[in-house]
Amino acid sequence: MRDAGIGVFDSGIGGLTVYKALRETLPVGERLLYLGDTARVPYGAKSDETVARYALEGARFLERRGIKALVIACNTMSAVALPELQRALKLPVVGVIGPGAEAACRTTKRRVIGVVGTATTIKSGAYARAIATHLPDARVVGRACPLFVPLAEEGWVDNEVARATAALYLGDLTAEGIDTLVLGCTHYPLLAGVIGETVGPDVRLVDSARATAAVVKARLAERALLDDGAPGTVAGSDQFFVTDSAERFRAVGSRFLDGPIDRLEQIDIQG
Amino acid sequence: MRDAGIGVFDSGIGGLTVYKALRETLPVGERLLYLGDTARVPYGAKSDETVARYALEGARFLERRGIKALVIACNTMSAVALPELQRALKLPVVGVIGPGAEAACRTTKRRVIGVVGTATTIKSGAYARAIATHLPDARVVGRACPLFVPLAEEGWVDNEVARATAALYLGDLTAEGIDTLVLGCTHYPLLAGVIGETVGPDVRLVDSARATAAVVKARLAERALLDDGAPGTVAGSDQFFVTDSAERFRAVGSRFLDGPIDRLEQIDIQG
Repeated sequence: MRDAGIGVFDSGIGGLTVYKALRETLPVGERLLYLGDTARVPYGAKSDETVARYALEGARFLERRGIKALVIACNTMSAVALPELQRALKLPVVGVIGPGAEAACRTTKRRVIGVVGTATTIKSGAYARAIATHLPDARVVGRACPLFVPLAEEGWVDNEVARATAALYLGDLTAEGIDTLVLGCTHYPLLAGVIGETVGPDVRLVDSARATAAVVKARLAERALLDDGAPGTVAGSDQFFVTDSAERFRAVGSRFLDGPIDRLEQIDIQG
Repeated sequence: MRDAGIGVFDSGIGGLTVYKALRETLPVGERLLYLGDTARVPYGAKSDETVARYALEGARFLERRGIKALVIACNTMSAVALPELQRALKLPVVGVIGPGAEAACRTTKRRVIGVVGTATTIKSGAYARAIATHLPDARVVGRACPLFVPLAEEGWVDNEVARATAALYLGDLTAEGIDTLVLGCTHYPLLAGVIGETVGPDVRLVDSARATAAVVKARLAERALLDDGAPGTVAGSDQFFVTDSAERFRAVGSRFLDGPIDRLEQIDIQG
């Protein structure tokens, strides 16, 4: 079982920020299987029921490939479908919200934490609940930012449109007294520059990707499932699966990874 | 057969602009069945193969309900799947691109026509081909505007972000000499104000919805399938189907229609 791969599942391309953090944290010998449900992306404005149904279909696809653990590299899915996935699958399933919330609790001084994410993630209240398990007296201010994903995918991360959008969504967040802002969507780290400018230097940004990678490593080690060897970014045997054509994923994805994506395959998970 | 309903199929909510034009053009007695594939929306950045597969699934769902004609109220689907749908279905299937292109050809004086739409629509070249059948010497300048759909859905149709986005996408279009601009996506009429400001008063905007409604009416009349009676907007017996939860469709949709949406049902078209 220790030789088995680790599944990384996202609605599309944003989860590559988590893939990258895993690659940098885990031993070289670990093999990652990435699935992006690009035919049905985005999940962020869809209902909880639909997201949960899609999540289960994708998770089953990776489970059939014999993985030893599954990382839900998508905030929306983690927000509304994680307990269901943990019940349904007979392997460790790690989402991004728990680790992200914990990192935010370690970061905040004033115990006022902002969270930005998709409409579905924010509406779920999942971050507020996860933060409350560590800091019951913390105040959480959520803000849905639906345009950040299309901006990141368009590559508009440092222009007038990105700045005006960030100002409209986040302009009044500092008045709420936040000192920490969780980037609660895997696309948002691409906009970290503009987001940081808008909320100012006194607000620390928390990206869940790194925190999640550390939790995955610890969880595997606990269960003696971690491959020995040094961490490293050799990704020769990693595989990528998408549900829509590979072409666009390859183009946009290599921008996320700063490098080419090999071993990419279009598959069908419905049914 | 004359008593049967008319199917109106879109990837989501944008097709309601076409629904509205049909309602205003067709006799009161005509009954419309609207399907929005909201669980898999948007189609505009997906591959031709995936869009064609989804299009066929949705069309079959409406066909099983006994419709007498089908309107493809989505530019992306019309651009890449219309011939396939026309082959597969045994009833008249009308898309929005043919009527929109014809309306543009009637409008242009200088025979230089701009077309804005989703990445998939523009890449398909479907408007340029349809325009060439009427005006072979016209020049067509296409421009993909991926952010316009999320802007329209966010309701940001008249703010700084909308203006900056329109300026980036369309700022240089007038230098190309266009005198006509086709709004080649059913969401874009909501942004017509900002788009019009950006391209200036000398460029006429063409919205395919009205042109499509006229073609549908003529096509039904030709085949003696048109209900008698005056045109009108009574929509009491119309039905709406969506593949994701009805809640968001109801909220955003009533903004598109300036009125409430009754008889709305969530269904499953995968099968």
